[in-house]
Formats: sequence, C-alpha cells, structure tokens
Amino acid sequence: MAMQVDLGSRDILFMTVIKDVRNGLLAMAGVSQAEGYECVIVQGSGTFAVEATVSSVVPKQGGKLLVLSNGAYGKRMAEIARIHGIPVSIRHYGEREAPRPEHAVEELHNDPSITHVGCIHHETTTGALNPIEAIGKAIHARSPKVSFIVDSMSGFGCYPVDMKVGHIDYLVSSSNKCIEAVPGFAYAVARREALEASKGNARTLSLDLLAQWQVLEATGQFRFTPPTHTLLAFRQALREHEAEGGQRGRLARYQHNFNVLCEGMAKMGFHPYLDDDIQGCIITTYMFPTDPKFDFPRLYKSLQDRGIVIYPGKLTEAECFRIGSIGRLFEADMRFLLTAFKDIMEEMGVQLPVTQRSL
Amino acid sequence: MAMQVDLGSRDILFMTVIKDVRNGLLAMAGVSQAEGYECVIVQGSGTFAVEATVSSVVPKQGGKLLVLSNGAYGKRMAEIARIHGIPVSIRHYGEREAPRPEHAVEELHNDPSITHVGCIHHETTTGALNPIEAIGKAIHARSPKVSFIVDSMSGFGCYPVDMKVGHIDYLVSSSNKCIEAVPGFAYAVARREALEASKGNARTLSLDLLAQWQVLEATGQFRFTPPTHTLLAFRQALREHEAEGGQRGRLARYQHNFNVLCEGMAKMGFHPYLDDDIQGCIITTYMFPTDPKFDFPRLYKSLQDRGIVIYPGKLTEAECFRIGSIGRLFEADMRFLLTAFKDIMEEMGVQLPVTQRSL
Repeated sequence: MAMQVDLGSRDILFMTVIKDVRNGLLAMAGVSQAEGYECVIVQGSGTFAVEATVSSVVPKQGGKLLVLSNGAYGKRMAEIARIHGIPVSIRHYGEREAPRPEHAVEELHNDPSITHVGCIHHETTTGALNPIEAIGKAIHARSPKVSFIVDSMSGFGCYPVDMKVGHIDYLVSSSNKCIEAVPGFAYAVARREALEASKGNARTLSLDLLAQWQVLEATGQFRFTPPTHTLLAFRQALREHEAEGGQRGRLARYQHNFNVLCEGMAKMGFHPYLDDDIQGCIITTYMFPTDPKFDFPRLYKSLQDRGIVIYPGKLTEAECFRIGSIGRLFEADMRFLLTAFKDIMEEMGVQLPVTQRSL
Repeated sequence: MAMQVDLGSRDILFMTVIKDVRNGLLAMAGVSQAEGYECVIVQGSGTFAVEATVSSVVPKQGGKLLVLSNGAYGKRMAEIARIHGIPVSIRHYGEREAPRPEHAVEELHNDPSITHVGCIHHETTTGALNPIEAIGKAIHARSPKVSFIVDSMSGFGCYPVDMKVGHIDYLVSSSNKCIEAVPGFAYAVARREALEASKGNARTLSLDLLAQWQVLEATGQFRFTPPTHTLLAFRQALREHEAEGGQRGRLARYQHNFNVLCEGMAKMGFHPYLDDDIQGCIITTYMFPTDPKFDFPRLYKSLQDRGIVIYPGKLTEAECFRIGSIGRLFEADMRFLLTAFKDIMEEMGVQLPVTQRSL
C-alpha cells in the first residue's frame, strides 16, 4: 500500500524517505552516525551491494581478500573479487560446517598480505548461521588493520549483530529478507573511517560505494534514479519491524515459526540437514525421502496451487529442498504448510514417516 | 495497482512476467528474437544498464569506445569507460548542437582502433533529440565491424527507432521514462550476434550483460533477485502503452503536451533554450528571466505546493530550469502547470512577458 504514491526521486519529500530509511538501518544495526557509522544504499539485488562493497573498498594496489565460505554465497563473494582482479583466497568449509575464528587467525598468520576478510552471516544456501562476531573479534585481535566485510543478506533484522563488538566494517543486506519489504535495493552499513579510507579503490561507476555515500550525504539524494516505490515500501516495513519489537520481536516470531515447522516435519520423518548448533531459524534444508514415489516437482506444484512457495535445495552435495520461515508468516501459516505437505505426501503415496536419503 | 501482488522471484508465475516484459520490449524496439535480437534486463537505474553494456561488450584487449557527446549523459558514458580502463575518446558538442554522422565517420577514419561508438538518443540534460539512425548508418557504411551503442533512456517508447536501419547493436533504456512505469530496472535490446561475441569481456559480476542474458534464456529467471513488483508494474505499463497506440500514440500525446507547454510559456516570454531542429518533445529547458524578482527556489516550492514538480537545469553553460512533458500527463495537466506558473510569477512580482537571460 505504501507504494501507491509517486514521488519525484529528487524531490524534498522523497529525500525525507531516504533519510528515514538510512537512519532506520543504522538504528537496526545498533550504530549511529555519531558513533562513526554510515548507511549507503545501492540499487539492485543484494549481490549488487556485496559487489559494490568488495569492488569499492579492497585497495587496487596491495589489497587481498580472504573469504571464509560454507556455501554458495561465500563462493559468490570470492567470485566477485576474482572478476575485479582482486587477489582472493578462500577457506572452504563443508555445507554443514561453520567457519571458525581460529581458522581466520591461522589464515592471517600464514598470509600477511590479506587486507580484508569476508564472511556470510546466514548462509541462505543451507540455513546455516555463522559466528560472525567471534570471527570479527578474532580477526581484530590478530590484525587490527584488517577490515571485515559481512554479508548478512538473510540474517539482518532477525539475528542480533554488534558491529562494534564484532569489529565489522561493512555489514551488507537487502530490502526483501528479514525486513520484509519488497526487492529492489540493498545497502551496506559501514564504519565511516574504513569507508573514507577506500577512496580511489572503486572499480565501477554504478557500484561505487564511497561516491554513493558522498552524494547521499551532500545532497540527500541518490546519484542515479532510485527505486522510489521500493524505498517507500521499505520505510513502512521499518515501522512494522519496530512495532513488532525490532530485531528481538522479529527473531521471536521467526524462531516460533521454525519450531512449529520442525516439530511438524519431524512427525513426518523429516529432520533438518544441518545440526542444531549451526541451524538458523530462517531457512531449513531437508533431504529428499528415499521413497521412490516422492516427486519434488509435483510437491512444488501442489504446494503452489495452495498458495505456498518452497524452494529447491541449493546444495552441491545432496538432493534436497528448502523451506523458508521468514516473511509475513505466522504460526497459522506454518500449520497450513504442514497440513498441505502431509496431504500431498499422502496423495503421492509416500510412506510416512519417511526415511530420508543419507549423504 | 499492479504492484499489489507478491510473486516469488523464481516462481513460474513470475517467469511469465519476465517473458512478457522481455517480449514486449523487443516488440517496442521493432525487432524479434527470430530476427536476431535479445532483451536483457538489468536491476538498478538506467546508468546501471549503460554501465552493464559498456563494461560487458567492449573488448578487454584492443577495444576502444568513441562517444559522441552533447550533454551530461554522453559524458557519463565516457566516464564509465574510463573507470573500467577502457580506452575512450569523446567528440564534444555544445549543449545546443547535435552530434553529426559525418563527424563519426571522421573520427573512425582518424582512429582505426575504435571498436564501439556510443551516443545518446535523447539528451535529458537539455531535451535535445539526436539523429541516431543517421549516425548508425554512417558508422556502418564506413566501418561495418564497429558496434553502435545507443543510450535511449528518455527517448525509447516515444521516438521511433529502427535498430536494423540504424545498425544499432545495443539500445539501452529504463523502466520509468516514456514507458511510464516505476523506477527500478533498465534493459538493453541487443543484436544477438554482437552480444554473443562479447564473451569474456565482462568486468563485473552483477552487470555482466551476456551472463544475465544467458541465465534469462536458460532458466527464464534472473541471476540475482529482481525487483518483482517493479516488473509487474512495467508489464501493466506495456499494456497501457500498447492501448495508447504504441510508440506513435505516445509520441502524439507527448508532442501535444509539448505544444501546449511551448505556446503557454511563449506567452509569458519564455522560449526554449534549444533551437527547433534539435528540440524534442520530452523535456524543455528554459533560461531564467533577467528580472531580479525571479526566485527559482520559490517557484519550485510554490509549484510543488500545487502538486507539480519541475527540475532545475543541468546545463554547464547557463542558469535554467527544465519542464518535463512526459509521464501520465495530458493537456489539462499542462494547462494546470501554465496557470500555476503564471500565478506564481505574478505573486513574485516578475514582469510578464519576461526577458530571458542570454548565453
């Protein structure tokens, strides 16, 4: 409904929207301009803002990125570096493992040329929650000059993150995950000193993070036409986020959704692919059942006919599907899904409880 | 209203939207896949798609771009090339001059290393309409292997453009100008052979035009989350464009808006900054009056209070303002503007008819 207004992208009325959104995001990250943090909005999807950050802040001369990766999004961050000719090394983890702080320290010890470390907060690939604060602390204790970039696409707004404690210089997220607005832009919350020190490093025009920030600050406007309606929706989503009790309120609802989902799926024999200690409450990966009557395309289509969309899995290792428990979803929605799921399994003639495939 | 639906970005229902939009844009450009043309959508503003094109198609080895520039957007295209380390030369024109086909030929003659030529169709800086078809023909006649990139941000959907006759390889535009949808994405209509030949030239991940096309073709989906609601609005806008009689119908309405505007402004002593032979019907630049009582910020604010937004000028040479006559505007809107304009001039005590500043 908030999108049913046309505002000129350089109009004073819209400049207020931009300001509200930037301030709201700083507050959500638990920081402020007075404490030396800035919010830079970037048009496009989340990947655009990750690319804006990596390609704008790692120095052209003498910069090197280390990525701690346990999924597709970690790999993507490294791919971005490679495309821009940025030296990059990856510490690979299995999709069921979380990156470990001591490994970051080990990598920094072995390669003193590393200037930036990147890690995913919540790996949408699997639903894994990574210990970014502990990693950031360990990096800072070992090498205080090394900059830490966190891709918190599907975590921000739900999971707590302390940029100061975790020494996070850039926290990147998008409009359409836990803040529940519509897709169309992304952003980085950045430590101002780090951002200012990145001068001269940008490798693109559109994704130049420092220039984008400078123009937002100087004029209150975007450099290039922003998605005005998307920002209006986002401002409303920020208000709803706050009304729900902010990050804590949102986490409580998502955690409850997840608990209801897990309990119901367990009754049908489905157990999450990830171990409890790494499983977040945002997205859950389930292995396919062994029963040959299980037909994923049919399951997908039948759920869709009932107004439910789930996702195919994104694992390299296994055949699986994913169920999201975030967005404008409540317990009743999760129960509706579980009932539909059970009905469809029975329609397919799949024996319940299922036996899941093993790895 | 079309945005009041949530579709999953990888859902079959949304894939139909993407297909409708891509096909609609090809049709609007007067070409088809069967004739060897493709539509590639890029998230972000128009500049994102210009950067996607320039940075993805000019070869890394041996590529050189010539830009024929008569305003800020020509300069921006050249700036994009420079940022990506692409050799670039600019043929500069004054803001009241149009680029000339024989100059393109001259430049190609003087510098055989040029592989790509870029030009703006309609310079939003001033409102100038450039003879892109004649330029494209001249380029092709002189150097058939040279590729032609046209930024038709504020022209496409209103002014006719024949990609085949004009030998245009890439025609770039955005969602929110003459097609009257909301901002949030842009696109390139590309000659497939040229696009395919660009393999290996992309300098970014997010703005990789060839990869974006390949994934759209292979999966019917975006590589990275698209602005779903913006695309839904755009599909509706395409339907309305067609219902108005397509490009011809839209041009007729805009031309009429422009005529009403010009006539009314002339009565108050305001004459367009551009000569008739270069003036388009989309945006009109007017020099400030000499009367010291003229106060642009007050004019802007008073118009805004009446629900009218005009733009400050963007000339390097002169103090001016700009009035747009595109968008969901009709004769009554233009007359409403003229009445408001006259009232405000009288409130400010500006003597009518005005004498405009000279250059």
